[in-house]
Amino acid sequence: MKESALEKARANYSPKMPSMLGGPVEAVEGEKTQSVANNEEIQSLFPNTYGMPVVKFIPSQASKPMPAINVGVILSGGQAPGGHNVIAGLFDGLKSLHADSRLYGFLGGPRGLIEHNYTELTSDIIDKYRNTGGFDIIRSGRDKLEHEKQFDAGLEILNQLNIKALVIIGGDDSNTNACLLAEYYKKKNTGIQVIGCPKTIDGDLKNAQIETSFGFDTACKVYSELIGNIERDCNSARKYWHFIKLMGRSASHIALECALQTQPNLCIISEEVQRNNSNLDNIVTEIADLVEERYNAGNRFGIILIPEGLIEFIPDFKVLISEINKLLGVPANAEQFNKLDKSERMSYIQGKLSPKSAQLYASLPASVAAQLILERDSHGNVQVSLIETEKLLSDLVRTNLAERNNPKLLEAFAPLHHFFGYEGRCAAPSNFDANYCYSLGYTASRLIAAGKTGYMASVTNTTAPASEWEAGGIPITMMMNMEYRNEGSKPVIRKALVELDGAPFLTFAKRREDWKKSTSYLYPGPIQYFGPAELCDRPTITLCLEQGKTLD
Amino acid sequence: MKESALEKARANYSPKMPSMLGGPVEAVEGEKTQSVANNEEIQSLFPNTYGMPVVKFIPSQASKPMPAINVGVILSGGQAPGGHNVIAGLFDGLKSLHADSRLYGFLGGPRGLIEHNYTELTSDIIDKYRNTGGFDIIRSGRDKLEHEKQFDAGLEILNQLNIKALVIIGGDDSNTNACLLAEYYKKKNTGIQVIGCPKTIDGDLKNAQIETSFGFDTACKVYSELIGNIERDCNSARKYWHFIKLMGRSASHIALECALQTQPNLCIISEEVQRNNSNLDNIVTEIADLVEERYNAGNRFGIILIPEGLIEFIPDFKVLISEINKLLGVPANAEQFNKLDKSERMSYIQGKLSPKSAQLYASLPASVAAQLILERDSHGNVQVSLIETEKLLSDLVRTNLAERNNPKLLEAFAPLHHFFGYEGRCAAPSNFDANYCYSLGYTASRLIAAGKTGYMASVTNTTAPASEWEAGGIPITMMMNMEYRNEGSKPVIRKALVELDGAPFLTFAKRREDWKKSTSYLYPGPIQYFGPAELCDRPTITLCLEQGKTLD
Repeated sequence: MKESALEKARANYSPKMPSMLGGPVEAVEGEKTQSVANNEEIQSLFPNTYGMPVVKFIPSQASKPMPAINVGVILSGGQAPGGHNVIAGLFDGLKSLHADSRLYGFLGGPRGLIEHNYTELTSDIIDKYRNTGGFDIIRSGRDKLEHEKQFDAGLEILNQLNIKALVIIGGDDSNTNACLLAEYYKKKNTGIQVIGCPKTIDGDLKNAQIETSFGFDTACKVYSELIGNIERDCNSARKYWHFIKLMGRSASHIALECALQTQPNLCIISEEVQRNNSNLDNIVTEIADLVEERYNAGNRFGIILIPEGLIEFIPDFKVLISEINKLLGVPANAEQFNKLDKSERMSYIQGKLSPKSAQLYASLPASVAAQLILERDSHGNVQVSLIETEKLLSDLVRTNLAERNNPKLLEAFAPLHHFFGYEGRCAAPSNFDANYCYSLGYTASRLIAAGKTGYMASVTNTTAPASEWEAGGIPITMMMNMEYRNEGSKPVIRKALVELDGAPFLTFAKRREDWKKSTSYLYPGPIQYFGPAELCDRPTITLCLEQGKTLD
Repeated sequence: MKESALEKARANYSPKMPSMLGGPVEAVEGEKTQSVANNEEIQSLFPNTYGMPVVKFIPSQASKPMPAINVGVILSGGQAPGGHNVIAGLFDGLKSLHADSRLYGFLGGPRGLIEHNYTELTSDIIDKYRNTGGFDIIRSGRDKLEHEKQFDAGLEILNQLNIKALVIIGGDDSNTNACLLAEYYKKKNTGIQVIGCPKTIDGDLKNAQIETSFGFDTACKVYSELIGNIERDCNSARKYWHFIKLMGRSASHIALECALQTQPNLCIISEEVQRNNSNLDNIVTEIADLVEERYNAGNRFGIILIPEGLIEFIPDFKVLISEINKLLGVPANAEQFNKLDKSERMSYIQGKLSPKSAQLYASLPASVAAQLILERDSHGNVQVSLIETEKLLSDLVRTNLAERNNPKLLEAFAPLHHFFGYEGRCAAPSNFDANYCYSLGYTASRLIAAGKTGYMASVTNTTAPASEWEAGGIPITMMMNMEYRNEGSKPVIRKALVELDGAPFLTFAKRREDWKKSTSYLYPGPIQYFGPAELCDRPTITLCLEQGKTLD
């Protein structure tokens, strides 16, 4: 494996971690805990792992000798920067407890556990991946650990390898499943512990106990680099409107953080669209108004950020999608539909929708109308992530501007489109993520040593220097509630959406009117790993504001 | 103007320049020169600026006192990283000659000169823009300086401001026009000198005298960062084929440099397509073969780089485009065409094409077939840059795979698309570009002091440390030849395409078979400004190979 110059230079970086983890620690237990909602249901589903106390590590006088143990690790779900450092921290933590401890990586996500596909992670391997991006060390996968049959298949290989604990690195769904597994293994008295680690670039796995999920910092910085570069281009050329869609399946944390970092002319926040019950036409009109206002002020250019998940937060669009899903969910309809010539399909759909949805559908650009019915997933559902929202909006804005009887305004509207997502998921972790991930992995080793199961590794006080960070564990059941999913009501970790009364959104809301009129672009540039601390070690603005800091 | 943390840190960077420029220099003249072709025609068009000698600066014993002078500067054409540093270098160079010299920036490109729209660039302004990306200090524009009326309008304001020399920062076209202007002002005995600086991210303004154009280094590094991040994601998820289109209007220098930096599975080089007379079907088949080969080896993923200009290098596609342009160039046809309903337009075109082109047109995905006839420029020509080549290719690859009677292969082919261009044009310049641009600007001040006109600033030996670089000037006529353009035969700077017998292409060609089969991705990461020199100061691989260095 040939290494780039950056990888060579970066290999020497020693991630910082809470200084307390450098010596022996002991686990201090807090009060018993409750789930965020549906306490009784969650308790009945997790009788063995419900209500456990929050755990905090504090320095200990004496180091308790530990036997050598074997531990397994899984990367689950979409890539996020820093995954390799979680594994490196876990490895180093285990080795610090006993030099003969071993770490096994299950390959390709949860499937590796079920299908007994694994590799031992030795120091030779670990060293090659320190401070690098990607999940390629053992790869990831999207299979879900949900069924007892899968748990039993896993148990077989865990026993065979004499594995005492399994660390699952993943998002809300994967950690929900880690909790199911912990409960099952505890119920069965297997003696196998399960520990989770909070990962997702979307930033929606966070709560009172988990300050941030790893990867969010790096991904937002990469997107902000690109947005800033485009802003500078936009402000130099002064002739384009850039519609920039940003990854993030539901929550708009990424769009919000990038807006705070780059100060665009407009940033749509899905959660606000939902609260205000804004329909598609409201959003389009707001953008068209902005285009006209800036045009009148001599500014024929602008930057608009759009969260990927927007479509599902727009009330009238949501209804349209659910009508199409329902319509084609009926086998007889689907059969009839599939027999139709492609050119006839749109009018077939059009004729079966409610009047309101039919009107909306008719107003869509042809390409989007086609995307909505041609590309459906294996359940027959519309694949929302394939809809090019950035083009949808710019097309509709053009139509809206055309109705304003100002040919010069219309002519001056030249949109360009971008979608950033894959560019940020596997970037080399920022110093923050490199440190945070390493600390999470190291903390996981301490939770294992403390005999915990059904816990998520927790590193807090993360806006302070890393040496002052605190380490501990949170019972996963504490973050759960019951939610309705495809197959009925299920226990899940509650997803953190953007809070409209939270400091990050309020700070944005206070400034955005100014960003509309003036051109206040900020150009953050690429992530720096070697420069001054105030440039290289700063966490996200979201995190700082959430932790009570103020913006300069 | 609020500054980002990077801008604050970067403001303190002192660009490096040839150490000789730190003291007094004198201009040493070489032999008389000739244009690269059409000597007599070029000479007759440029009687006053043809045949001048190449100039080299060498340290001088005594510093000759200079009077204070006024100088103008223009940014012309597309943005490229480092433009602000050219201006800063020019400013510092002029001030070093006489503290009372002044620099005026014409606003919004050549139009600023013609329309007398300018600002004085004082040290307060210059200091805010040192080492930053963008052209926003005075903005750029695409107007062309070609007509005497424009030259006269410019002369008026130059005289009014008592400007002794004008520096035009631009690509091949802008420097061609700088030469026309130099010739005209010399012919008219205006005493006003014109100096050019070589700018373009495309990398196609280079020759025996100009080692590289500025901005190419930074832009390629930004694109390579993104490609590397996507490669790492691709190699972690192992389920997508990424089709990545890269900016670069004609030449494939960017795609080639990015391929050398990131080692993708395939990189198309337009110049090779043209030489091999490969038609669209050949290209599609090559990609489909690669997809199948990798599928058979268990690799359902890959990375393909596509130069933006490709379409115009594919012989059968080129014919199709010229037939459409010719067809709709006839006013009667255009009128008839425009009256048609949108749904009838494709069959109208289809019916008027030659059999071969009609067949190719019919084979295109509907979206591309529509793009080809719906979006034409003000001359009625197809807007080639709007064609989504990356989607065209992946659509056709899917069709090709569908004919291979292997449903699993077809199902496993999941393409994703990217286009990178605007992300790199205004990035903060790499150390190389920051130094190179500053040196070019400083050199321009020395060419002015030496009384030169019709010269391009030249900084050479650029793979050595900056202190060892050499500075001089090249008569622009030396790079010219006659080429056929819309309005007939014209004198222009010859564009540098990728040389298929040059070291960069040959190095790529030697390695690419291996990259196809194996997964040899390299992850360069983001541009670093503050780390070790071997990471931060390295020039492009293209430049190193062209200068006889070998790859490690």
